[in-house]
Amino acid sequence: MNAIVSSKQEPEGSPPSPPTAASSLEARLLQRLLQSAGNLDVELLLGNEIVVRAGDPRGTSAGRVRIKDRATLYRMLRDPQIGFGEAYSEGRVDVEGDLVKLLESAYRASPPERRRGVLARLVGRRPRANTLAGSRENIHHHYDLGNEFYSLWLGSTMAYTCAYYPTEGATLDQAQLAKFDHVCRKIRLKSGENVVEAGCGWGGLAMHMAEHYGAKVRAFNISKEQIKWAREQARARGLAGQVEFIEDDYRNVTGQCDAFVSVGMLEHVGVENYPALGRLIRRVLPANGRGLIHSIGRNSPGELHPWIEKHIFPGAYPPSLAQMTQIFEPNGLSVLDVENLRLHYAHTLRDWLGLYESAVDRVRELYDERFVRMWRLYLAGSIAAFTTGTLQLFQVVFATAENNELPATRAHLYA
Amino acid sequence: MNAIVSSKQEPEGSPPSPPTAASSLEARLLQRLLQSAGNLDVELLLGNEIVVRAGDPRGTSAGRVRIKDRATLYRMLRDPQIGFGEAYSEGRVDVEGDLVKLLESAYRASPPERRRGVLARLVGRRPRANTLAGSRENIHHHYDLGNEFYSLWLGSTMAYTCAYYPTEGATLDQAQLAKFDHVCRKIRLKSGENVVEAGCGWGGLAMHMAEHYGAKVRAFNISKEQIKWAREQARARGLAGQVEFIEDDYRNVTGQCDAFVSVGMLEHVGVENYPALGRLIRRVLPANGRGLIHSIGRNSPGELHPWIEKHIFPGAYPPSLAQMTQIFEPNGLSVLDVENLRLHYAHTLRDWLGLYESAVDRVRELYDERFVRMWRLYLAGSIAAFTTGTLQLFQVVFATAENNELPATRAHLYA
Repeated sequence: MNAIVSSKQEPEGSPPSPPTAASSLEARLLQRLLQSAGNLDVELLLGNEIVVRAGDPRGTSAGRVRIKDRATLYRMLRDPQIGFGEAYSEGRVDVEGDLVKLLESAYRASPPERRRGVLARLVGRRPRANTLAGSRENIHHHYDLGNEFYSLWLGSTMAYTCAYYPTEGATLDQAQLAKFDHVCRKIRLKSGENVVEAGCGWGGLAMHMAEHYGAKVRAFNISKEQIKWAREQARARGLAGQVEFIEDDYRNVTGQCDAFVSVGMLEHVGVENYPALGRLIRRVLPANGRGLIHSIGRNSPGELHPWIEKHIFPGAYPPSLAQMTQIFEPNGLSVLDVENLRLHYAHTLRDWLGLYESAVDRVRELYDERFVRMWRLYLAGSIAAFTTGTLQLFQVVFATAENNELPATRAHLYA
Repeated sequence: MNAIVSSKQEPEGSPPSPPTAASSLEARLLQRLLQSAGNLDVELLLGNEIVVRAGDPRGTSAGRVRIKDRATLYRMLRDPQIGFGEAYSEGRVDVEGDLVKLLESAYRASPPERRRGVLARLVGRRPRANTLAGSRENIHHHYDLGNEFYSLWLGSTMAYTCAYYPTEGATLDQAQLAKFDHVCRKIRLKSGENVVEAGCGWGGLAMHMAEHYGAKVRAFNISKEQIKWAREQARARGLAGQVEFIEDDYRNVTGQCDAFVSVGMLEHVGVENYPALGRLIRRVLPANGRGLIHSIGRNSPGELHPWIEKHIFPGAYPPSLAQMTQIFEPNGLSVLDVENLRLHYAHTLRDWLGLYESAVDRVRELYDERFVRMWRLYLAGSIAAFTTGTLQLFQVVFATAENNELPATRAHLYA
């Protein structure tokens, strides 16, 4: 620990003055907060008075975090992660400087096992369960916020998953369409084939498969708002005969298909349900069946950031690759290809955050300032999670174990 | 069970006649043997007399297996898998028809958990341990058989791992060189970079990296014969200054490198040593380090075929992908890319078997008829294991968790 304490805010670069006696308790508490964040190199302010900093005072700090009052400081000490997110949303903490850069520094400074306060770990919430009813509630919380809100910043495809940027200069919409094509090529989708899509969002991929590959798609989703939008779009695009949007849980998928795809649903399934998901996939696939699962993941098992799980994605969990294999290994499925698209998700999120900030006045009208700040923190924090390798994005292609109709190489993906 | 028993051999296609009283014990034992092989649809003969068959007598059987005498039948009943391989090697069992096709049928008929007799499971051998001394013995058993022997059928590269066929018509040598390039491109090898290769075989990849990519390679191997050959080759090709062949265990790797590669060694490491291998990799890599591990694997955990483990590859074990992740997940390594090259290995093995059969007279001179048959069975059985999906081939690219110098897409592999 190399914390430097100053009794009042100094111009940047000048050496801090020693603490006054009156401020010593708060200074020690601020120091402890910095310590719990892995001695993150930020300037920590309590109101306009007390400045604490870890690291070299002559260096450039990662930013300036201003805690408005003592009650907020205490709340952050009790549970630094949830406390910071809630206080930020309420405007009781402010970040001066680049929010994404500060959050990147926070992720880099703090190894996962240190990221929660002792008290928070003791009384820690468990992620909300993904029973049939639990999943409905969890999905409703996030995806039914309103289609207008999402249409402000997701781009024209309304795809709410990692895009695929074939070139650095591709636009968000181009990258989402490239992602759709990447998925279709990976499963070698042919005209007339039947696809089951589990968790279809606003239906962009399902409609793309029908329109550009001649596939017949049954797309499952338990978000009412998304299904409503998807059905309207399918009618408007003349695809209603080829794409069926089914408002039901993936666990109720029946019948057979040539390919099973799921893009951005696994995060909501829960590790305990992976072997059953694999059994279901195996059941709906014929001998030459194949599929693709696209999911946020981690390099090693660990919970989702607790503030995100509480306020943004209840019940969500990003698995490690070992955890994902529990879908395939017990169920006669063979992993053919894994691609980690982590930096593509950081790029996607930067594009989303840009559109979000452009539309922030409308977001404030639809909701309130707290909501605006909460979603800014979520998007900025997600960029930081992907750029720092805290989160990964795994696209896994698989086939039934006996399927020998496999492409010789992956060159067809890049032709 | 739908076994059909005949007292003597019948012309193919004609219905079998009922068993005689004298042969009923042997017939029941042959039936039991078929049953233990998942009612594999072959004609099973004891000498010239007793024919047993499972499956539809009007259909085409997968082949004809002739057991020479009653003692061999008993031995196969005690442990069908090891018994078959040993009796085949000794010429006490013969296969009439296509050996590879018969072995493919055997793999397809028999789920992994049924593949050993009850007695064999009770007294089953444990794979030989991969301690430092145990590994030396295990590796010596296989790889020190003599460089002349391997040079008869491995092709000019002497690469003894799965090749990569960019086109179906590529030759073995072309496919091995393409594999070398595929590996170098996957790790984006640049001139002047340092590579550690763990388990370098006859040094083909190490020399290719030096000659065509300007890399400096330290290549580790504990096979005396291979190291001798590799050093001679490096001198002859003028690469001795760039490639150092080190006769030592991978566990003794020291220093740092830009990339860590291991092609076809992991099968000999042992699952219990994977976390330590991962720690070693993490230790030798800098922040922007990356690597590749290429290994035979399985769709789900399971032992190597016990005859192969006993006679061909002592101590070997092909891991599932979940097991492989134990190298990466505990050690701050991030999986970037997994490619399953299973059918490329079947292709490679068909090429090897073709060359082997062309050189079989020389193999008989070097060793004996038992050795000739043992290696024929091993190569044919390996083809069958890969075509049936009993074995997989995983190429895993990884990087340190904090490495953001990642290629945007995989298109550069196919340019």
